[in-house]
Amino acid sequence: MKLEMICTGEEVLSGQIVDTNAAWFANTMMEMGVEVQHRVTVGDRLEDLVHVFQERSKYADVILVNGGLGPTSDDLSSEAMAKALSEPLIENVEWREHMEAWFSKRSHPMTQSNLKQAFLPQSAVMVDNPVGTACGFRVKLNRAWLFFTPGVPFELKQMVQEQFIPFIRQEFSLKDKTALTKLLTIGHGESLLADKLETIDLPDGLTMGYRSSMPHIEIKLFARGQHAIDKLPSITEQVRSRLGQALVAENRASIAEEIHARLNGSGLSLSIAESCTGGMIASQLISFPGSSSYLHQGLVTYSNESKVKVLGVPAQVLDDHGAVSIETVAQMAKGARELLDSDYALATSGVAGPEGGTEQKPVGTVAIALATRDGVKSQIVQLPRRSRDLVRSLSSAIALDMLRRELLGEEVVVDYASFSRSA
Amino acid sequence: MKLEMICTGEEVLSGQIVDTNAAWFANTMMEMGVEVQHRVTVGDRLEDLVHVFQERSKYADVILVNGGLGPTSDDLSSEAMAKALSEPLIENVEWREHMEAWFSKRSHPMTQSNLKQAFLPQSAVMVDNPVGTACGFRVKLNRAWLFFTPGVPFELKQMVQEQFIPFIRQEFSLKDKTALTKLLTIGHGESLLADKLETIDLPDGLTMGYRSSMPHIEIKLFARGQHAIDKLPSITEQVRSRLGQALVAENRASIAEEIHARLNGSGLSLSIAESCTGGMIASQLISFPGSSSYLHQGLVTYSNESKVKVLGVPAQVLDDHGAVSIETVAQMAKGARELLDSDYALATSGVAGPEGGTEQKPVGTVAIALATRDGVKSQIVQLPRRSRDLVRSLSSAIALDMLRRELLGEEVVVDYASFSRSA
Repeated sequence: MKLEMICTGEEVLSGQIVDTNAAWFANTMMEMGVEVQHRVTVGDRLEDLVHVFQERSKYADVILVNGGLGPTSDDLSSEAMAKALSEPLIENVEWREHMEAWFSKRSHPMTQSNLKQAFLPQSAVMVDNPVGTACGFRVKLNRAWLFFTPGVPFELKQMVQEQFIPFIRQEFSLKDKTALTKLLTIGHGESLLADKLETIDLPDGLTMGYRSSMPHIEIKLFARGQHAIDKLPSITEQVRSRLGQALVAENRASIAEEIHARLNGSGLSLSIAESCTGGMIASQLISFPGSSSYLHQGLVTYSNESKVKVLGVPAQVLDDHGAVSIETVAQMAKGARELLDSDYALATSGVAGPEGGTEQKPVGTVAIALATRDGVKSQIVQLPRRSRDLVRSLSSAIALDMLRRELLGEEVVVDYASFSRSA
Repeated sequence: MKLEMICTGEEVLSGQIVDTNAAWFANTMMEMGVEVQHRVTVGDRLEDLVHVFQERSKYADVILVNGGLGPTSDDLSSEAMAKALSEPLIENVEWREHMEAWFSKRSHPMTQSNLKQAFLPQSAVMVDNPVGTACGFRVKLNRAWLFFTPGVPFELKQMVQEQFIPFIRQEFSLKDKTALTKLLTIGHGESLLADKLETIDLPDGLTMGYRSSMPHIEIKLFARGQHAIDKLPSITEQVRSRLGQALVAENRASIAEEIHARLNGSGLSLSIAESCTGGMIASQLISFPGSSSYLHQGLVTYSNESKVKVLGVPAQVLDDHGAVSIETVAQMAKGARELLDSDYALATSGVAGPEGGTEQKPVGTVAIALATRDGVKSQIVQLPRRSRDLVRSLSSAIALDMLRRELLGEEVVVDYASFSRSA
């Protein structure tokens, strides 16, 4: 099966937004063992769309088309496909009724422009979109099935999972069983990981890939066919042992998800005091439903005054050692834990940049502490200063890794190959 | 001039990395008034590359090709282009000497595989790359100049700025001036905005586009040519007046950026107490360098205990009205403001979902308050319950909009067309 993708939309073509839908889709397909072999991105010009639908349908078996199903005048996918097929657009009554029900349920008036969303090429097979007003559909042209999906990411995702994948499974009887294991690392560059792992002898059908998604690099072990699937556990074990401390989670999207899974329903409680990470740790945990069961509070004590008044950091400690120091961050963690008598507290304080660095504490210097009922463990690290966001996200990941190690009864402060330790 | 882009590389095609080069290049060109009209992404298969070079060179005047100039076996751009031209690859002696000097300056041995990087198609014109070992080049095929650039982002950027832009300026005497105005909205669906704006009569050369980037919808007015540029202010004014309260910022990426710009250096100070938004407001502001000048603290008081102990919300208020109530959120804002005597404080408390809703307070019910030195203004809204993240990001945007209105001396609590108000 030859799978291609066509991304539509001036904003994607013109770089107003980075095309995360394309990356998500290709990655999702790859995890199923299907490669996207070609991708075209076009703007909102009718003739360009018509041409690309006609052209690519000669080469591909299936084309996922993304975007252009909305109610506005620059949403042209349906019209262009009808033109490419030399067919009229016909109102799909089922979808118009679906939209009427959608708006009436929400007590919103349906606008004139929404009506357009029910018009599909004559030969189109409707594809349900339970979470939006953009109607999906598929049509056959030349060699290809063209499968039209909305540009809104969560609508696309739901339609791909619930409609597109079952469709291609059935239409192209995908035979080979596949399996995937994902290992999440922090603190090791890709070339270092490659050096560690590339001498592992992979059996036929088993491939290893890397995906950089800061603050993580993910290692993916993909097995196609029963033979490779049978070997997956032993290869995974080899990778695990070579990764050592770099490995922080398996089959999770982030270390925050790993911590959430460990704390949710555990009866344990956590407070967080953040300076340079500025709410990032709390926000990452709170994105998971159920986080209220363990997260007492997250205090973004950005100013020194706030560290003193809210967390009870002694003013003398700030005067003597500065905000970015082992001493201050330890007091922050201690204060945050004691406020609500939480089981654990994490604290961060650092120089996220681009300004504010000094010779002694350059941009990227970050102090991180974990307080438990037994005391405080803390460290100060020197992170790559490439960007403010990178410093913040690496700091968050290291803080969460300290808590993860504590929960596992492991040593809390360890060396990460790519970060140096400040004095 | 018809400009296209060809992105090569398995890791981009397969979603292992998001293609930020493509977005950067298109955006850089658009700000020069040149649109990228078509983009193809292909993997590292020789025949696919040959085919796409031959095919697209029939339609475009200039094609920027990105990637595939490295030393490894999957770097095939040069070889594929030679094949597409039916030409041999010839060693470019100047570039080999350049590489030898490059490696000797760094005391690294030049590997055998680097030698390959000096081989270009016979008719190629070399394009200098002062910051790497990948040699740029350009060739003419059919209608198009194909311009080959390295995949490493900073090498691409330097080559585009120093070589590509001067080349197209000279080759295609670029005439039309362009201008762009971006208007950021909240609380109005795209179809509602379209209904409001589509009857505006746009002069030739002026186009209007929408970009949905939750919690915002952005309206873009793009003018090409002096005639359209002259009309841009009056059209922008018409759009402004039709948008009314929906408009929250101009030429900004987010309302957080607008608030940052208004508070940074103003001498005013802000504290934030977040429950359902869970650090999102603070984290958004902290992503801007300089936010420490006005942001006192952000308190994620997720548990009731934390609301009482840290913010001083009376336990009786929580008992009588619940955490998600006008009364509680007003006390949260008041407490957060008073802790460090900030000029302003924002507070949120709501049901982000997917669990935790009740008949009286379903998922999406959010109470939001702004405290000033003169008192507290608060409201409770019913947001679309599509996802936990959406509820949180809309709540953050409304909170920041309340502060924006206060800073402008406008009414703080207003109706948003797409959100209903709870009793």
